[in-house]
Amino acid sequence: MSEVLIKAKKAKEISYQLISKTTDEKNKALFAIAHQLLEDEKDILAENAKDLQLGMEKGLDSSVLDRIKLDSQRLKTIHHAVLDLIELNDPIGEKLDVIQKENGLEIIKKRVPLGVIGIIYEARPNVTVDAASLTLKTGNAVILRGSSSAKYSNSVLVKSIQKALRTTTIPPEAVQLIEDTSRETASELFVLKEYLDVLIPRGSKALIDTVVANATVPVLETGAGNCHIFIDESADLVMAKNIVKNAKTQRTSVCNATESLLIHSNWYEKYGTQFIPYLIGEGIQLIVDDEISQAFPELQVATVEDWATEYLAMTLSVKLVQDLSDSIEHINKYGTNHSEAIITKDENNAQIFQTKVDAAAVYHNASTRFTDGFEFGYSAEIGISTQKLHARGPMGLEALSSTKYVINGSGQIRK
Amino acid sequence: MSEVLIKAKKAKEISYQLISKTTDEKNKALFAIAHQLLEDEKDILAENAKDLQLGMEKGLDSSVLDRIKLDSQRLKTIHHAVLDLIELNDPIGEKLDVIQKENGLEIIKKRVPLGVIGIIYEARPNVTVDAASLTLKTGNAVILRGSSSAKYSNSVLVKSIQKALRTTTIPPEAVQLIEDTSRETASELFVLKEYLDVLIPRGSKALIDTVVANATVPVLETGAGNCHIFIDESADLVMAKNIVKNAKTQRTSVCNATESLLIHSNWYEKYGTQFIPYLIGEGIQLIVDDEISQAFPELQVATVEDWATEYLAMTLSVKLVQDLSDSIEHINKYGTNHSEAIITKDENNAQIFQTKVDAAAVYHNASTRFTDGFEFGYSAEIGISTQKLHARGPMGLEALSSTKYVINGSGQIRK
Repeated sequence: MSEVLIKAKKAKEISYQLISKTTDEKNKALFAIAHQLLEDEKDILAENAKDLQLGMEKGLDSSVLDRIKLDSQRLKTIHHAVLDLIELNDPIGEKLDVIQKENGLEIIKKRVPLGVIGIIYEARPNVTVDAASLTLKTGNAVILRGSSSAKYSNSVLVKSIQKALRTTTIPPEAVQLIEDTSRETASELFVLKEYLDVLIPRGSKALIDTVVANATVPVLETGAGNCHIFIDESADLVMAKNIVKNAKTQRTSVCNATESLLIHSNWYEKYGTQFIPYLIGEGIQLIVDDEISQAFPELQVATVEDWATEYLAMTLSVKLVQDLSDSIEHINKYGTNHSEAIITKDENNAQIFQTKVDAAAVYHNASTRFTDGFEFGYSAEIGISTQKLHARGPMGLEALSSTKYVINGSGQIRK
Repeated sequence: MSEVLIKAKKAKEISYQLISKTTDEKNKALFAIAHQLLEDEKDILAENAKDLQLGMEKGLDSSVLDRIKLDSQRLKTIHHAVLDLIELNDPIGEKLDVIQKENGLEIIKKRVPLGVIGIIYEARPNVTVDAASLTLKTGNAVILRGSSSAKYSNSVLVKSIQKALRTTTIPPEAVQLIEDTSRETASELFVLKEYLDVLIPRGSKALIDTVVANATVPVLETGAGNCHIFIDESADLVMAKNIVKNAKTQRTSVCNATESLLIHSNWYEKYGTQFIPYLIGEGIQLIVDDEISQAFPELQVATVEDWATEYLAMTLSVKLVQDLSDSIEHINKYGTNHSEAIITKDENNAQIFQTKVDAAAVYHNASTRFTDGFEFGYSAEIGISTQKLHARGPMGLEALSSTKYVINGSGQIRK
């Protein structure tokens, strides 16, 4: 039996035990994990150094190396994130509905764990602890499949977690890592419908697309964000400047950063000669449509691909549109259903935009950067869902649960 | 462009219009449809007769022909089912959460339509109207792909629906049928992720498995039910007789009928010689394990395949188990996560069973036959979900919706 199969079978078995663990038992396990991680700091940083060394030898980008890197401070942040989860309400066991039927049947709809969750992710070793603690809090067993570039770090982190679990009532195999990071082990996970209840890919669009295309296990799709801002005819100039600057430049590598700007042509006529140079002055590389290019010939001209590109950099595509419905059509065509914004003084236009744009979060007069579990007040999140089934937008603990009907009778039969 | 692609593109376009239709507009459309169907009775029955004629020529089973058959009475039932939907609460637009942030942002979580729903189904033409009206009530566009055996019936029904919609504010293409019932059109739908938001297969396990294995569009899995009853040591004999008889024989062709019986060996020792002949006397064909077979050598002996078989007939597999955990393990291994029941006087055992058995509905002292939208009080249902994401158990109107965050600001940017 392969490593994946052995661990997946084990996870399924363990998941049936986890269903009946109390909130207190799970919180004690989180507490133990948080402390074990600090206790094992020396080992963890030593193993992390091996990943960094190999990464440098392989010539990995400095931004990738930075994502892999752990240090004392980052480990403390991870430690605190685990402790924070203890405070959160445990959704498992919650009664969502109680129906009393005339025949005496009592039908209770309850929140239950999903079962076994597979998480396929890239680089960042903090995801290892993050995913393990979120799934544990919700009574799920987890199979982690990280990338080869963080393999020593992931391995030592999971060993530390399992060591902590051994001191608790939660079986250590509630959290398992696939040590073999070859492509085959990911493919094997895609189709293990018998043992996995859900797969969550976290990482690049390419990774997510591969999982969606090949998995028979249900997938919780997270992430890609080709987010837009539409500046309507009546938009306030100062507000437009502030929001676009914030949404594009405050942090460029994140999925809720804005990638494309649509400007009402009447607004552009009034403010374009002031606004475009403002964006350039903020260090943003603009890729523009033909009309803007005529006034600013030094700017790169956009191709169709640009409208569909998530730059994750200080780059912004800019396009003029004739009206509100033009902007909605463009966004529904090229967007990734993540976060979209309209800047307007016209409440009616805002409402139409918010109704017709098909995305997880649609903003009126605010930056797209707010789409985030913490900003929404949900605390921990496992990712931002861009799909429409099960969960949409920031996914908190509830997204890691399912429901079940428990029905109590006294011999009822169907007429 | 193929028929599927043309219709899917159109459906996506229409879906953006449907988002903003009011409950009143949708209800008026349902009313128009219900009446048009009666008005077109003559045409509908004439086309249905063609399907029946072809079916007879092809030598289809009488049970299949009966599922295809429409008559005046059945059309009235369909008419009333559409009218009943008008009374139901429209989930679309419902505010699920309103969050007021300190920075002045107002975050509203709203229920929205899924968008475009593809339904792939077999035989029964009533599903055509059923699916069309449920998806319409929830503001979705639908692409129907029925089977060739009901192709004339489905076609005339959708024409009638579209004729009705032309008299309303709902575009007729909100409901479209794929007329080409070749295998290729189904395969094409599986991967139309760009235009379809969800696929719902309704029919045999083989159909559902094919869709799940091949679709990249998210699937709402419905149906297969290899349901069990476990008779615990302390079960009441009369209750056991009543419930098993009801769950097996009241209607055998449905997914919530019981297919497999597990009996605690101590109970069997006491009551087996009375209970087994009782089941046989009720006309049930028993397929039994080795131990029961020794006492009843005339009964067929079960193979491993029997434990995994949904008979949908007057057949029941029967197995002795040593204890509660044996029964739970067996059910989690061979069940299809649909409906499972325990008969016991021991409340503690009931609770353990209801916690650890991994199924949409888990009964204590009641027949598995109750898993049904109407029995649960949800009125209309689009199917019974046996998956854990999005919806579990009977799926009512809410299962045909998604959510969206609408955020209102006054220039907020992220710090």
